Amino acid sequence: MITRLSNYFLKTLREDPAEAEAEVASHKLLVRAGYIRRQSPGVFAWLPLGLRVKGKLEQIVREEMAAAGAHEVHFPAMLPREMYEATGRWEEYGDALFRLQDRHGADHLLAPTHEEPFTLMVKDLVSSYKDLPLTLFQIQDKYRDEARPRAGLLRGREFTMKDAYSFDVTDEGLAESYQKQRDAYERIFTRLGLEYAIVSADAGAMGGSRSEEFLLPTEIGEDTFVRSAGGYAANVEAYVTPVPESLPIEGLPAPVVYDSPDTPTIDTLVAHTNAVLKREDGRAWTAADTLKHVVLAVTHVAGELAGEREIVVVGLPGDRDVDMKRAEVVFAGCDIEPATAADLAKHPGLLRGYIGAARVAADGSTTAVLGTESETGVRYLLDPRIVPGTSWVTGANVDEQHVAYLVAGRDFTADGIADLSDVRAGDPAPDGSGPIETARGMEIGHVFQLGRKYAEALGLKVLDQNGKLVTVTMGSYGIGVTRIMAVLAELNRDDRGLIWPRQVAPFDVHLVATGRDAGIFETAEELAGTLEAAGLDVLFDDRPKVSPGVKFGDAELIGVPRVVVVGRDAADGIAEVWDRATGEKSKVAIAEIAALLSK
Amino acid sequence: MITRLSNYFLKTLREDPAEAEAEVASHKLLVRAGYIRRQSPGVFAWLPLGLRVKGKLEQIVREEMAAAGAHEVHFPAMLPREMYEATGRWEEYGDALFRLQDRHGADHLLAPTHEEPFTLMVKDLVSSYKDLPLTLFQIQDKYRDEARPRAGLLRGREFTMKDAYSFDVTDEGLAESYQKQRDAYERIFTRLGLEYAIVSADAGAMGGSRSEEFLLPTEIGEDTFVRSAGGYAANVEAYVTPVPESLPIEGLPAPVVYDSPDTPTIDTLVAHTNAVLKREDGRAWTAADTLKHVVLAVTHVAGELAGEREIVVVGLPGDRDVDMKRAEVVFAGCDIEPATAADLAKHPGLLRGYIGAARVAADGSTTAVLGTESETGVRYLLDPRIVPGTSWVTGANVDEQHVAYLVAGRDFTADGIADLSDVRAGDPAPDGSGPIETARGMEIGHVFQLGRKYAEALGLKVLDQNGKLVTVTMGSYGIGVTRIMAVLAELNRDDRGLIWPRQVAPFDVHLVATGRDAGIFETAEELAGTLEAAGLDVLFDDRPKVSPGVKFGDAELIGVPRVVVVGRDAADGIAEVWDRATGEKSKVAIAEIAALLSK
Repeated sequence: MITRLSNYFLKTLREDPAEAEAEVASHKLLVRAGYIRRQSPGVFAWLPLGLRVKGKLEQIVREEMAAAGAHEVHFPAMLPREMYEATGRWEEYGDALFRLQDRHGADHLLAPTHEEPFTLMVKDLVSSYKDLPLTLFQIQDKYRDEARPRAGLLRGREFTMKDAYSFDVTDEGLAESYQKQRDAYERIFTRLGLEYAIVSADAGAMGGSRSEEFLLPTEIGEDTFVRSAGGYAANVEAYVTPVPESLPIEGLPAPVVYDSPDTPTIDTLVAHTNAVLKREDGRAWTAADTLKHVVLAVTHVAGELAGEREIVVVGLPGDRDVDMKRAEVVFAGCDIEPATAADLAKHPGLLRGYIGAARVAADGSTTAVLGTESETGVRYLLDPRIVPGTSWVTGANVDEQHVAYLVAGRDFTADGIADLSDVRAGDPAPDGSGPIETARGMEIGHVFQLGRKYAEALGLKVLDQNGKLVTVTMGSYGIGVTRIMAVLAELNRDDRGLIWPRQVAPFDVHLVATGRDAGIFETAEELAGTLEAAGLDVLFDDRPKVSPGVKFGDAELIGVPRVVVVGRDAADGIAEVWDRATGEKSKVAIAEIAALLSK
Repeated sequence: MITRLSNYFLKTLREDPAEAEAEVASHKLLVRAGYIRRQSPGVFAWLPLGLRVKGKLEQIVREEMAAAGAHEVHFPAMLPREMYEATGRWEEYGDALFRLQDRHGADHLLAPTHEEPFTLMVKDLVSSYKDLPLTLFQIQDKYRDEARPRAGLLRGREFTMKDAYSFDVTDEGLAESYQKQRDAYERIFTRLGLEYAIVSADAGAMGGSRSEEFLLPTEIGEDTFVRSAGGYAANVEAYVTPVPESLPIEGLPAPVVYDSPDTPTIDTLVAHTNAVLKREDGRAWTAADTLKHVVLAVTHVAGELAGEREIVVVGLPGDRDVDMKRAEVVFAGCDIEPATAADLAKHPGLLRGYIGAARVAADGSTTAVLGTESETGVRYLLDPRIVPGTSWVTGANVDEQHVAYLVAGRDFTADGIADLSDVRAGDPAPDGSGPIETARGMEIGHVFQLGRKYAEALGLKVLDQNGKLVTVTMGSYGIGVTRIMAVLAELNRDDRGLIWPRQVAPFDVHLVATGRDAGIFETAEELAGTLEAAGLDVLFDDRPKVSPGVKFGDAELIGVPRVVVVGRDAADGIAEVWDRATGEKSKVAIAEIAALLSK
């Protein structure tokens, strides 16, 4: 095919767009080069060039889905409320879900993902184990009402996704279906030349289910992940703090209460404690010796407890902070925020600034203050590092007093563990593969063993080999097609424009005719025909009255990887072939160009 | 490509679906044969077979759009309110528009058509006449909140449409761009084997604009259109009643008022009048001699008058009725309904059952009762047939009295014309090409010269050849892709299933292996390979344990036009080739089948 710029809907722009999304360099280039146009925050229209790249990406995804044995279907974007209510997601999605009513007052949503309708379709059409395993996929436009849509296609409110869902009778079957999609994702990213890390995205708390993210290591990524030299890799939310061994309690010093006025921070507390209390083993007190208490308000989003607001105290070493994303995993299904003054007012037992696990009597005996069995009745969770036999400096539950040598397992216990402290470089990998380092990444794929949650909620059962009805187990697998296009643009560019990898470039060759000599245009026209005959998709800049400088600038901005310039040397049968990526320019006999570029 | 039924997501159903859409035979077949599944009223999911047919249809449309010089783009379904407010469509669309708010309270809609964002995109990117003419199109999922979505894909709430928009500087340019799309539509329908009538869809009241519908003549169509043997064809809404010549008033009889109790209908009035009043020319009074008055309540939907409810009296011959669809054209931009008792109570001058144009005094002199200049002040519009010199039986504005010989132009005049009576077979074509007949049709395409309405509302101007800013003139052109698929299914079926035309059939050949003999399956397998090598797309029913009857039933239901059955005769190198449309079955040497089917 030959596409002539003299008759193509393409307007390159000199100025960067003013929209908020322009914070990302590739977005500016995609807009300036005429690939996309913004319609509203996080919502874009596709121009002819953009449609071409997107189409090529979709084709690669389709090929690998076919190779993985998945069947293509297509669901509507607008779906009725009921199916999402049955799984709890109508509420759980909160503000991120676009909801609407039809003229009869029936509720609908614009689907953020399609687990529910896929489950119901399989329930409708499949009744026996003989029809499984089955993996279905679609390439479809999805909706999420992001609070701050940013970075253009990287995080839009409307975006194209390939989502696949697998259906199996057995856990082993699910593991196989999962592996097939996982392998397909590896092939897709390899074909696109995308570096990726596969990281655990789930702590395994959901009963043996498994979830992994494909992260592209990049500074503009929104996710932080951790990895060890020994091969461990996980999303920060999925990092599991190794639990140290318990220590002997016998022989540990008894609690010592001391005055601690004017110690509003851990730093001031440590300095003050060092000043007034010499540590038994002679070394100085540090922040890691203190037990900090954070009061959280936890509100259930859905289910029977929906709307209920619970106050929870979390204890963690003073040198750590709560990581709210990790906290969201601990309190899945709930909204979390720091307790407000109003919350604390309802719990006079929680003495702001001096909250501690226990009250110490004059004789050194202790009474629990935190925990559902204690005097406050407030649920009390501890960082996994606070094992029995560890000794802490913490609040004494008396104004302007702290206590040292308060020993876990002797002076206090908790209602459970909350693994929500921040994760740091140097922390141990949970699999013993050494210390971890942290890195930024952008999620470009996600594979998830859902297990039976959706099938149970929606009643998807089939007859097994023994004629018994069993609940199906499912996986879900997503790739953001438009996000990947943005990632490719971000990774493949320079200050002059985009540099597409060949596999997704809008054209194979960008042919430029320069000058005013009719002979040059005739030669270029002939060459265009030869390239087309060689099976190449040609973008032909045949604009008669546009200067060479503008043509070259457009070619660099648009970013087709191979540019052929037919100019003054055409009379001698010579044209210039540019490699957009390396900037290399070489003079080539026109008669040889088709063969050179078809390689 | 070979697609094996042993490993394909296809479940045919024996039972008709229960959904309301199943009123249409083709919808039942599309569901039973595994092409689509209903998600909510008028909203469907696409199964692999359905996606194949839809994809082929889209490809045909794309090819013809390319041939017409149109460029493909793609807009989001969700668009911000503001642009549709600027053109008045945010309100005008009424309940048919899906509206929603995002988390920040900003209003959005799910677009029913995309005139606004296309206009704005061209405004953004085009500034000179040199870039015009330009025609852009997309194939995209649209939304309309139909009150009663029915007939499956024929009238859905989510549906796929090809919509194109042309941009020109001059009216002549628009006419050319319009013609190119119109020609492309003719080519598309011809390729699909669809019969069509091109009918005028607009009375021309909007200032020279032109609009035509492509209607498929069919009894299940929702539109009524009229046509003459002489070539006239129009939508009923677009039919313009020819205005008869005025008649001489001189010498016409003076008004005669007479008692008319118990005449609630035109029929009783005519019978009564014939009984009490002999007509001057000797013939009997008929319904066509009476002037009937209909009181309408007209409410402006948008603009400065939004919400204002006006009472309008329309006079039309007693043998005609108001056609509400034609009335909607007359009162474009307004909601119309029959006036209520409450409306009439506010206008005591309108005497229910005896409303007339004038009051007749004892001396025969008349006073206007209807019209903005009359004693009621109510706007009064007349059917175009009621020209000066026509004489009428009508209400006398006195309880239980009518008047005969009330003459238009002598005894009453109106504020204007309202061409909203029903159109009937035998009425004259407005172009003088003879009497019309009426027919039912289904709209399968619509081409529309929008003119400058949208460009003006959204400020789309370009510099013309003289460097002057001029407003662009536009056209819009739509084809319902999913509706056409339903139309094709409806037209091509029998009681056993679908019969797809080759151009859009999901596969080229449906190859069935029957029996339990492994040799048969091997032969079929080989044949599948040969057919694939010949470039044919093969659906291969290789299911090992399914009876021939079920396989044949599925083949007929699915409707691939050519079926090849490899069975007992395979040992002799013979298979059976079925023509699904004619039912013809012929024995063919297996070695010759590929050549036969590739023809």
